[in-house]
Order: sequence, then structure tokens, then C-alpha cells
Amino acid sequence: MLYSQLFSKTTKQAPEGETAKNAELLIKAGFISKSSSGVYSLLPLGFRVLQNINSIIREEMNAIGAEEMIMPSLIHRSHWKRSGRWDVDVIYVAGDRNDIGKKNRDEFEYGLGWTHEEVIADIAHHMINSYKDLPKAVYQIQTKFRAEARAQAGLLRGREFLMKDLYSFHADKEDLDRFYQIVIEAYKKIFSRLSLPVLVTEAGGGQFTKEITHEFQVVSDAGEDTIHFCTICGFAQNKEIFDAQQHGSCDGVLQSARAIEVGNVFKLGTKYAESFDLRFRDAKGELKHAIMGSYGLGPTRTMGAIVEVMHDARGMVWPKAIAPFQVILIALNDDNKKIATQALRFYRELQKAKIQVLYDDRRGMGAGEKFGDADLLGIPHRIVVSEKTYPDYELKNRTETVAKIMTAKEIKTFLKKDNL
Amino acid sequence: MLYSQLFSKTTKQAPEGETAKNAELLIKAGFISKSSSGVYSLLPLGFRVLQNINSIIREEMNAIGAEEMIMPSLIHRSHWKRSGRWDVDVIYVAGDRNDIGKKNRDEFEYGLGWTHEEVIADIAHHMINSYKDLPKAVYQIQTKFRAEARAQAGLLRGREFLMKDLYSFHADKEDLDRFYQIVIEAYKKIFSRLSLPVLVTEAGGGQFTKEITHEFQVVSDAGEDTIHFCTICGFAQNKEIFDAQQHGSCDGVLQSARAIEVGNVFKLGTKYAESFDLRFRDAKGELKHAIMGSYGLGPTRTMGAIVEVMHDARGMVWPKAIAPFQVILIALNDDNKKIATQALRFYRELQKAKIQVLYDDRRGMGAGEKFGDADLLGIPHRIVVSEKTYPDYELKNRTETVAKIMTAKEIKTFLKKDNL
Repeated sequence: MLYSQLFSKTTKQAPEGETAKNAELLIKAGFISKSSSGVYSLLPLGFRVLQNINSIIREEMNAIGAEEMIMPSLIHRSHWKRSGRWDVDVIYVAGDRNDIGKKNRDEFEYGLGWTHEEVIADIAHHMINSYKDLPKAVYQIQTKFRAEARAQAGLLRGREFLMKDLYSFHADKEDLDRFYQIVIEAYKKIFSRLSLPVLVTEAGGGQFTKEITHEFQVVSDAGEDTIHFCTICGFAQNKEIFDAQQHGSCDGVLQSARAIEVGNVFKLGTKYAESFDLRFRDAKGELKHAIMGSYGLGPTRTMGAIVEVMHDARGMVWPKAIAPFQVILIALNDDNKKIATQALRFYRELQKAKIQVLYDDRRGMGAGEKFGDADLLGIPHRIVVSEKTYPDYELKNRTETVAKIMTAKEIKTFLKKDNL
Repeated sequence: MLYSQLFSKTTKQAPEGETAKNAELLIKAGFISKSSSGVYSLLPLGFRVLQNINSIIREEMNAIGAEEMIMPSLIHRSHWKRSGRWDVDVIYVAGDRNDIGKKNRDEFEYGLGWTHEEVIADIAHHMINSYKDLPKAVYQIQTKFRAEARAQAGLLRGREFLMKDLYSFHADKEDLDRFYQIVIEAYKKIFSRLSLPVLVTEAGGGQFTKEITHEFQVVSDAGEDTIHFCTICGFAQNKEIFDAQQHGSCDGVLQSARAIEVGNVFKLGTKYAESFDLRFRDAKGELKHAIMGSYGLGPTRTMGAIVEVMHDARGMVWPKAIAPFQVILIALNDDNKKIATQALRFYRELQKAKIQVLYDDRRGMGAGEKFGDADLLGIPHRIVVSEKTYPDYELKNRTETVAKIMTAKEIKTFLKKDNL
């Protein structure tokens, strides 16, 4: 991709009121754009990162046998009333203005989807009739809406955000327990592929369930949660249920820290199956309620969390699995025809070799500014074409300070290997 | 995929009130599920079709140099007020219930995105400052919301639906005209790849523009539009602007028909650039408003239109480019161990050969019912494993009545070729 053709511009400062580091860097680098408080557009650079995150999530969800689908955002009030969640604070209500104004509080037609247990339980009612139909697992990657009074944490807590939500259905509790562990392992794989260190943390179920649930927490001062954990045995609990007694016989010292919740897993039991009359006949012909699990993972919040924990004074540092480009190519003195020609030729060669390359072809811009933008964007590798090293190139990793002089062939070999 | 593991069931009848053929067939076949009037979930089978349609759209959009991004659904009222579209009838308003109830009609915080000119013009204001930044083209595949009083046409007119919307920015009218033609050609390619015959139809611009616009119309009695067209010279006009005089010197006879609008292209001019102060300096340093184009294509509506024009008495007939699976495999007498083993082995072989295969492994179901479901689902090819042809197979195209007896090797060769 040519930088001059990118629908993106770096800026010196983020808009007022953006105090979160992730919002500041993502906006400055032209990855996202603020639409209103807690609501952002993902510009092409940010969209590339998001798609890379989503691809990893999809691969791991499909690998555990979950099927992708998509549910609506306009969820009729009758659904929410069946489960008793029409009156929750976080729900945005929506409808035709000509209707809403005239009716009382209860008459808004829709609550915007902030979670989808109601919709999936209603569908499953038609899909699950027998123990032979179980277990089943479906997921979606879909926009969620939450009426957050204060939305000042950038992608960490928005009013509109993306969520991967997985729902599972089981004949008995043992089967739910089995699948719950499978999801925990899949989540660990996802975050490991994203290079994001997470702590699997015990927590209460909030309004969803009375069972112990598990949160995937990333230690960061930008987080809203406080967790207590041991780096030796892996014990971790959310502040709300923390009990030092449960740490067990490990010698490790318990630490506490702020953390960002990037995923969670819940055993829902039969609550929604009861609300939506989701029953099946077991092998003996008896009618039973299906047992459900619900598993969330926020791709946009994860993107924000990665920026919070992977940046330096110069900008973002994307893990290579999700970087918008693998390498950025910069030509110094590109008014020198020999250099400009070499840069363009090498850009085409890299493209041919299926390497995701951003060529900074912007004219009339100094080398310092281009280097600054390359660092801000956080692309893993930087290639410099200049008179100094001609006909060779400088290659530098985003986190290193010293560049290596390499031939075209050496760089291509290195990048292809790095790409695997 | 094993049918027994699919989150999908065929049913004998669609819910009450579903009069549209596309809704009836898609619901009966387990591709979609109705949530409320004009609002549907896409179940895994339907989601597969949708993803195939979206992939084709993405390829053709990327091929003309457009970049993908994503804009929000919660669009603040201040955006709509700047363009004068806050008061349109089709807008769903949304907000925190605790706020809405107390305030007057104007104080709903958001209008749900039914189109995104306002959002993109606001972003472009930060991205486009100079003629060097032009032209630019960006698109998204994003949910849209429209307050439709009557939503009874299935996927043809929903309250929530998917839209691919492309926006372009130009320095002058000539450049817009050039790109407008490029988009028309890209749309033709998309619909050709989808095997959907479209007529490029002249139309008025409605609320968007006073210029002549173009609609991509699919002739079908299920359509809401009426068009007049000539099958010889390609002349086609929407009823609203139809003028037989303009047909020109062609000898063809004009016909009129109902049609479904699956895409449209608009020259917006400077309307939104003016509302959002989107100006750039030209080569002489003068400030000018950017000229915009807007180009819609509805993936879910296109899916509905394909069902309307491609079905028979037995069910849907998917074009192979977007079918949820390329082939369905059915074993007759699968309580015969030899047959069941052969079917499962061949299923694995086809998977290995990267052929998208659905194996109907549902137990205790008669051959007639399985054949009926295979036809209803509309999968392009059907393979039957039975004692009668053992060790060979029957292969039949969805639209043919006679099957061919073929060896495993012949079938694989045929399907691989068919896959290209």
C-alpha cells in the first residue's frame, strides 16, 4: 500500500477529552476517529488490525467446533421482558420517534443488543428438541451497545464496541464443565497468538450467574478492575471475591494490580432456557431444560489493551500477528531519482513476495517526520532506502535502536521467515 | 461439516406473517431466523452465504482501490442536524431511557445509522486538506437501521440489514465522473460473479441528489420498483423518471416489470462537503469543497433477491460462487455398516481435497426426507452413497433430474474443476 493513498493522517494531538493512552495513540496515528463520546470509527489502518484480531478469534472458535452466525442489534422489548432484563441501566432503547414520544417508559420498541442470551435462547428453542441435538456451540462477532454514563477510556469502555460472543448448550452440567474448560484453553491460545499476557482470574458472576466465573485480565494501570494474583502458582481472583485463604500452599507472594478485562466465561445454567422454554427430551424421553454457557471476548477492547501494554514514548508497538503492515519502507532524499526508483522497485518486489508493506511515498516531507510516523504507527519492521547504503538497505525492528545493512535478497528471506 | 452438528433445522412451515418467498424458503431451510418484524438472525448456513457474497464485494472494492473501514451505528444527533437529516421518517432514535423520557423530541441522543454520509464527511474533514490528498475512496460493510412501518418482504426490506456503502472524494466533477463509471463496472462484475442478472437503470436521486443516478435492478415480481427497459440496447429507466422518448433509435420494444433494487450509485456533489466544511486547497492554493460520490450495495437484500429469482418448487438453487456448501453427501441405508463406512470415508476425502461438503449424517431419517432437505437447501451438487451403486456413487446437479454414476476419483476431479 502507498501511504499517499491511505485514508489516514497522523496528527500531533488527540482531541480534547481523550485522556486514555490507547485513544491518544490510535487517534494520533490515524487508526481510529472519534465520532462522539465512547463511539469511534475504525479507519483503514485500525480496521486492518481489527480484522487480524478477528481472524485469530475465528480460527480458534472454529477449531473447537463452534459455528459462526450473526444476531440482530434491534432486540424487541418482548425478548428482554421474558428474561427480566428490560429495565437494566446499560440498555439503550430505540424506536420510531413518532411512536416513542407518545408512549410511556415501557413502550420503546427495542433495546439495542448489549448481550444476546435472549436472542440465542429464543432461536435454540427451535433448534434443540432432543439430547441428540446437544451439545451445540455458536458464536458471532457483532456490535454491542451500552449506555455508559462516562465513556472516557477510548477502546477500553465504549458505548458501541465489538464483541465475540459464544453460546453453548448442553444436556447436563458435566458436559458444560467439559466445554467450559475447552473455551478457557481456546481463549489462552487466542491471547497467546496476540502476544497479550492474560491472567485467568476467578470472579463473581454479576447479574449473569451465581457460579464462580473466569475473567481474562491484562495487568495495566488503565484497567478498571483490581485483581489479586500470584506469579508462581497462577492463582488470581478479582477484588470482589478475593479471599487470601484460597491461595493454597504456594510460597508465592500475592500481588494486587489494576487490570483490563478482555474476556470472560460464564456458566449460565438454566436461567435463559427457563425464560425461553428451551427444553429437550433426554434418552429416557423426559423433558429437561438445556444448560447454557456464555463466553465473551472483546476484539476492540483487546485492541485498546494491546496499545495500553505495548507502546513506548515514540508510539505503538504492534505484535506482528496483528500489525496493519509487516514492514514500512521509507526512501530518504526521494527527489533523488536513483533512490526513488530503487524504493519503488523494491516495494513492488516485496508485494510480489506477499509481504504486507506500506511504502511511505508522501512527498515534501522530511526524513525525521517519516521516521516519527513509522514509530507512531508501530509497524514491526522499517526499511530505509538511501544514498548512504545504496544499493543495499537498512532494516530495523520497531523496538531496536540499531539498524542492519542488508541486501534486497537478505531482507526478503528474513521477512518471509518472520511472516511464518 | 456434519449435518448433525449444524445449528440449523429445516421446518415444514415459515412463521405466520411471512409472505415473501425469500423469507419462507430461508426460514424453512434454516438459513435465517425471524427475531421480530423485519429483523432476522443469520444462522450458520445463511451466514456462510452472506460471507461468500461479502468476499466477492470486498475483492471488487479492493480492486478499484477502495479501502475498507467501519463506522459506528450510534450517530449523534449533532451530525444529522448539520446535514438537515435529523427529522427524516426512516431514522430510529436511540438513547439512555433515563434521558429520553424526560426530554423533548429533539433530545434523543442518537439516530441509528441508516446511511453514513455525515460520519464519513466529518472524518474526511481531517484527512483531506490538499488536492494531493485526492481522490480517495473508502467503504464499509455495516449494519443499517431503517424505521420501516411495514416490513414484510423478508430480506428485501428489513428494519435492520447489511449494507456495503462506498464513499468517494474528488477534486473536480470530471474525476467523480471517471470514478462513477469505474464503480458501475465493479458492480456489474460483482453481480455477474453472483450470477444475478441486473439492469443498470437510470433513476432520480431522491433526497440524496438532483442528478440522474443509477440503480442496479433485478427483475422480479417481488420487487417494489417498476422499471421500463429494452432487452436489445440495455436502455432502462425507473418508472419515476421514465420517458419513452429517450429510448433512442433502437428497434427493441420497451417492456415494463417489477424489480428489486440491489445497488445504487449517486453523485452527491458538494452537499455534505458544505455541511461538514470539507475543503481542500487546489494546485493554485484556492480553497474548494470536495466533490463526493456515494455507492450502496445491500448484501442481505442481494441474498434475498437471489432466492426470489433462483428457486423452484422444491427449494432454493444457490449459484456455486456463494452456496453454503458445494456438495451435499447422503448415504442411503446408513444402518448398513458398509455404506456408512464408505460415506464417512468419502466425506473425509472430499474435505481433504478442500471441497466444501455437508454430510447428512442425521440418523433415523428416511431417504425421501433427506433428498427433500437437500433440494430445499439448494446446494449445487448431491452425492448419494448406496448399495445400488457401490463402490461407485451417484452425482446429481441441483437443477438436473438425472444422476450420473461416477467413481470417487471422477467425482473429485469433477468437483475440483467445478470449484475454480
